[in-house]
Amino acid sequence: MKLTPSKLAQFDRDGYLFFPSLFTPEETQTLNDAVPELYSRREDYNVREKGKDAVRTNFAAHLYSAPFAKLGRHPRMIEPVQDLLGEELYMHQFKINGKMAFEGDVWQWHQDYGTWLNDDLMPTERAMNVAIFLDDVTEHNGPLMFIPGSHKKGVVDAKHDLTTTSYPLWTVDNNLIRQLVQRAGGQQGGIVSPKGPAGSMILFHSCLVHASGSNLSPFNRVSVYLSLCAVSNHIRRHKRPEYIAHRDFTPITCLPDDCLLKDYPVDLPWKDGVPATALQTSSVPFDEMKKAA
Amino acid sequence: MKLTPSKLAQFDRDGYLFFPSLFTPEETQTLNDAVPELYSRREDYNVREKGKDAVRTNFAAHLYSAPFAKLGRHPRMIEPVQDLLGEELYMHQFKINGKMAFEGDVWQWHQDYGTWLNDDLMPTERAMNVAIFLDDVTEHNGPLMFIPGSHKKGVVDAKHDLTTTSYPLWTVDNNLIRQLVQRAGGQQGGIVSPKGPAGSMILFHSCLVHASGSNLSPFNRVSVYLSLCAVSNHIRRHKRPEYIAHRDFTPITCLPDDCLLKDYPVDLPWKDGVPATALQTSSVPFDEMKKAA
Repeated sequence: MKLTPSKLAQFDRDGYLFFPSLFTPEETQTLNDAVPELYSRREDYNVREKGKDAVRTNFAAHLYSAPFAKLGRHPRMIEPVQDLLGEELYMHQFKINGKMAFEGDVWQWHQDYGTWLNDDLMPTERAMNVAIFLDDVTEHNGPLMFIPGSHKKGVVDAKHDLTTTSYPLWTVDNNLIRQLVQRAGGQQGGIVSPKGPAGSMILFHSCLVHASGSNLSPFNRVSVYLSLCAVSNHIRRHKRPEYIAHRDFTPITCLPDDCLLKDYPVDLPWKDGVPATALQTSSVPFDEMKKAA
Repeated sequence: MKLTPSKLAQFDRDGYLFFPSLFTPEETQTLNDAVPELYSRREDYNVREKGKDAVRTNFAAHLYSAPFAKLGRHPRMIEPVQDLLGEELYMHQFKINGKMAFEGDVWQWHQDYGTWLNDDLMPTERAMNVAIFLDDVTEHNGPLMFIPGSHKKGVVDAKHDLTTTSYPLWTVDNNLIRQLVQRAGGQQGGIVSPKGPAGSMILFHSCLVHASGSNLSPFNRVSVYLSLCAVSNHIRRHKRPEYIAHRDFTPITCLPDDCLLKDYPVDLPWKDGVPATALQTSSVPFDEMKKAA
């Protein structure tokens, strides 16, 4: 899974790379099978859609579910990100987003790094988003929309939207979206939506501006979103609970390539519940930003 | 604009026909140019998106705007519908739907005839929907979604949804949508979204189940939706204001094919305002359903 120079150039230009069918149906099945039980739990780490019972996002499954713990250490996912960031990684955030049939709501236009900077005091953008499809993604079930090249703008202005959906998000102003889409080609390529079968993977830059529509179709669009951060770039504040922004900066060690299909022992530190300390938050930086910047 | 036997067979099977670029850019421009002023009017016939100023739908522009009055009598639109229904037509409903950039909200899964039956006592399904794109329609600005063949089910159960959006709609149950999509091919063709340039036209059966997603893109998706009813099948109740469900059952006479580009005199009966009688409603049928059925 070494990235070729042409792939590296493509990532630099567009801000994302798409790997259709990177995981086999057998591999994704082991993950899919675990989702309904995880979503059924009445825990803070399951955020439900506004006014509905459908799960919008589940946090931190890699700490309490064996299949997802193995995915979080999968070499097909970790190695290319290490290549791109040139450093060891830790898991900053781990989500299983539902976007369930009929119920899945929009994600407004945003940059992930905007939130990590504003909320978590992550010093720089040296972190990467990974999306892994657990269901087929089509034009009808709310695919991701990217504005190619928008990561080149760095961090852009955002405002904290607490009302549109059930989940607070730092969102980008419509006028800026209009400009970025125009610059990326307008109606010709200014917005792209990678679509493909379950098991496909997208790597995307933490400053890439993205959104996704609602899912009115009868097909779920469950995806895992992993946010991997360079260890030296770890967050400096615990303003959000640990299940949303992790506090263990130990470098990830990969499991073998067949880990999703075989038994490998994995640590599940939260298998008996989320520790009380994970819910403690503080608005005070625990280290000086300037040390890392 | 005669429909070939193969087009007629396709309509019978799928419930819709798509005509890309049926109107030229010059023709659609005359319509587009008139929209902002119409949308700016503070009138009951402009329904705005829930909690927003953006227009969701404008009603009855053919009665007070010359370009739209001409579109309502255009032979490229009227003649194929006359072919399909085998009878003279009147205008049951005329809408310019906004689905504006960033603001356009969803339309839930529904059949149009369900509403016409439940609200207006239209005796049978002998009425046709026409969509004419005034903007390019892409995967990103909330295209229509059809379930091919769903018109064959006739009128299906629906419930009156008064809360999801700003506009009350008789919507179809999720379980039935799931079945209809499965029957139509599931992930392979169970939902289709005709997309194309401004000036494209779709004819679709009044029982065809359809929906559309929100528009998060910076591109408007303004479309005209005309609902043409066989004269003998006219509505039997005035439960809704006349700007929503028309009460003039006079057969439409076509203008020449070049009418959008040349001056032709057209009647604009509501050019000085909506008459008070148009707002009067009654829940009593004014004719016996059985006479027409």
